[in-house]
Amino acid sequence: MYTVKFNELKVFMHNILKKLGMTESNIETVVDIYIEITKRGVGHHDIHNFPSRVERLMSGKITVNPEFSLLASYGCMESWDGDNGLGELINTFLMERAVSLAQDHGIGFSTVRNSNHYLASSPYTTQATERGCIGIVIAKGPPSMGVPGTDGKVIGQSPVGFAFPTKREWPVILDICLAYASGEQLLRRAKGGQPVPEWWGVGPDGRPTSDAEQLLRGTKYPIGGHKGFGLAILCELLTGVFSQGPVLDEQEGPDMAWKSSSHTAVAIKADALMDMDSYIGRSSDLIDRIDARAPSIHIPGQHSYKNKVEFERSASIDISGELFDKLNQCAKALNVEGLAIL
Amino acid sequence: MYTVKFNELKVFMHNILKKLGMTESNIETVVDIYIEITKRGVGHHDIHNFPSRVERLMSGKITVNPEFSLLASYGCMESWDGDNGLGELINTFLMERAVSLAQDHGIGFSTVRNSNHYLASSPYTTQATERGCIGIVIAKGPPSMGVPGTDGKVIGQSPVGFAFPTKREWPVILDICLAYASGEQLLRRAKGGQPVPEWWGVGPDGRPTSDAEQLLRGTKYPIGGHKGFGLAILCELLTGVFSQGPVLDEQEGPDMAWKSSSHTAVAIKADALMDMDSYIGRSSDLIDRIDARAPSIHIPGQHSYKNKVEFERSASIDISGELFDKLNQCAKALNVEGLAIL
Repeated sequence: MYTVKFNELKVFMHNILKKLGMTESNIETVVDIYIEITKRGVGHHDIHNFPSRVERLMSGKITVNPEFSLLASYGCMESWDGDNGLGELINTFLMERAVSLAQDHGIGFSTVRNSNHYLASSPYTTQATERGCIGIVIAKGPPSMGVPGTDGKVIGQSPVGFAFPTKREWPVILDICLAYASGEQLLRRAKGGQPVPEWWGVGPDGRPTSDAEQLLRGTKYPIGGHKGFGLAILCELLTGVFSQGPVLDEQEGPDMAWKSSSHTAVAIKADALMDMDSYIGRSSDLIDRIDARAPSIHIPGQHSYKNKVEFERSASIDISGELFDKLNQCAKALNVEGLAIL
Repeated sequence: MYTVKFNELKVFMHNILKKLGMTESNIETVVDIYIEITKRGVGHHDIHNFPSRVERLMSGKITVNPEFSLLASYGCMESWDGDNGLGELINTFLMERAVSLAQDHGIGFSTVRNSNHYLASSPYTTQATERGCIGIVIAKGPPSMGVPGTDGKVIGQSPVGFAFPTKREWPVILDICLAYASGEQLLRRAKGGQPVPEWWGVGPDGRPTSDAEQLLRGTKYPIGGHKGFGLAILCELLTGVFSQGPVLDEQEGPDMAWKSSSHTAVAIKADALMDMDSYIGRSSDLIDRIDARAPSIHIPGQHSYKNKVEFERSASIDISGELFDKLNQCAKALNVEGLAIL
C-alpha cells in the first residue's frame, strides 16, 4: 500500500491528460470526477479505471476532445452524438443539458449515443442535486444478464442511478445495476472466497451456483427474475432506441456512427410543483420516516458520504502497489512525472 | 363456475354504477377498464375487485363523481387533487394529462394525491401507447416491504408499470411491484400449497420461510434487497412527495386533504426525437433481438395479449360461484337487475 495525497493525484492526472492534448476545461471535469468518485471508497469504477482509460486515449480508441452534436430535440428532450469521447465528459455535459431543460420544462431528458463508460452514476446524479434537481442516469451495455428459464446472456444489466436532495448534508444516492450483483462485486467475492446466493445466477454449465467465480464465468440473473428483466427492457428503450444508438446486441451502426455505448440523463426540478422549502421538508420527512421505521439500516448515499468526509479529513488515500505501478507506467509511457507518495 | 358474456357484464356494471349516481361518461371509463383488465386473464385486480369498490361507493367512502383540482403546474409537470374518487377514473384522467403534456414537451408528468387504488397499471400505460407514447405509472402504498437486515415493514411495495409500442399487435407491457411477490401472488401460492423461495421474505417470526401463508403474515422483501429498496424510495418521492400527498407511513394530511393514496403517470412521446416509423422500427428491433437471444421466453405483454384475444373470440368469461354471488349481492343491495348467465 502507498499513501497518496489527493492533491498530488490531481496534479498527476492533470499532467497525463494535458500530455494527451486534452483541453484544460475537459481535464478539470475528468479529474474532478475521478477524485469525487474515488472518495466514495467503493474501490472500483474510480481511480482504478484511470490507467485503462489513458491507454484507450493514447491508442486513439477514445476521442480526447470530443465535439458533441445535437441529433434531435423536442421540448424537454434532446439526443446527442458523443463523438466517441470519454463517458465522464459526455455524461457531465448530458446532465448539464438535462438540468438546463428541467429549469425550463420541469423535466429534462438528454440522451447520447457514441459515448463510453462513465465510471459510476453518482457524480452526474449529484451534479443534478447541486442544482436543485433530482438526477437519474441510465446506461446501456452489451447483454450480460440472463433470464431464469433460458440459457445465455439476453440483455444488458442496465446500470441505473439516481440522487435527490433532502435537508441532510448528503443527497440520497442509489447507484446499482439490475443484476443481483455487478461483475466487480462478484470479483471481490471470488477473491475473498465468499459464496453468493444461489439465485444470483448460473455457472457456465447453466446450473445455479454459490461460487462467485463460477457465476463470473456464467450468467447473472436480473433482480426479481422477470421483474428486473422487464425493467431492463425499459432501460434499453430509453438509452439505445431513444439515442439512435445500438439496440440490445448490435455491434455498430451505419458508418460506425455508434460503435460504442449509449446513456441517458434525466433531471427533475425539485421545486417545480412546490417551493424549495416545501420540497426539502417533504423529501426529508420521507427519509426521516424510513429511519424511524428501520433505524439500523443505511439510507442509500449515507455510507459513501461518510467515506467522503473521512477522505477529505485525511486528504489522502491508500492505493495498492499494483495500482501505483499501473499509474506510473502511464506516466512513463507519456514521459510525465510519476506519482509521488507520502 | 358460471359463464358470463362480456356484454352482459358491461350492462350489469353500467346499471350498478348508474344507480350509484355516476355520470355516463364516468361509467363508460370505469366499465371499459374493468372489462379490459379482466381480459388480461390474471385473475385479480379485475372484475374480482368490483364488489368491494361498489361497497365503498355505496357507503360514501369513495366520491362517485369526483372533481379534480389542479394543485400546481410547471412546464411538463402537474399535480392534482383527486377528490377521493375511484382510482380508475383518476388514473385515466392523469394519463390523459400526461399524454397531453408530452405532446407539447416530449414528456408529461402528472401526479395526484387523494386518489384510490386503480386496479392494475396496464389500462393506463396502454392508454399512452394508443396515443403514440411510452406510458409509465407508479403508485404509492402503505409500508408493506421490509429490508433484509431489519425487522418489520419499512416501505411500500411500489406498484410500477410501463408500456411501449412496437410493430407488433400488442405493446410491451410490464406491471409489477418491487417486492418479489405481491399479496395476490402469495395468496394464490398459499391456496395451491405451493412453496415460495426463501429469499422472498420472512414469516411473522422474522425468519426466512418457504411457506406462502407464513410470508403473507410476515414481511415481503424487495427485489434484489437494497436495490429494490432504493428504487422504492425513488417511487415514494415521485408519488407521495411530488403529489403533496402523504409520505411513507403518514395516515392523513391537514383537513384530511390526502387521507388516501397518491400515484403518478408519465408519458414520453415516442416520436419526439425521431419520426414514428423510425421509432417503431427500432423498438421492434429491440424486441426482435431479445426474441432471437431467448426464443423460449415471453416478452412482457405477450401472454396477456394472447389471453385478451382468446377472451374476445369467446366474448365471455367463466367466473366462480363466489364472485357471481358477490356481484349479485351488489345488484340486490342497489335494487338493479342481477347478472345473467349463459
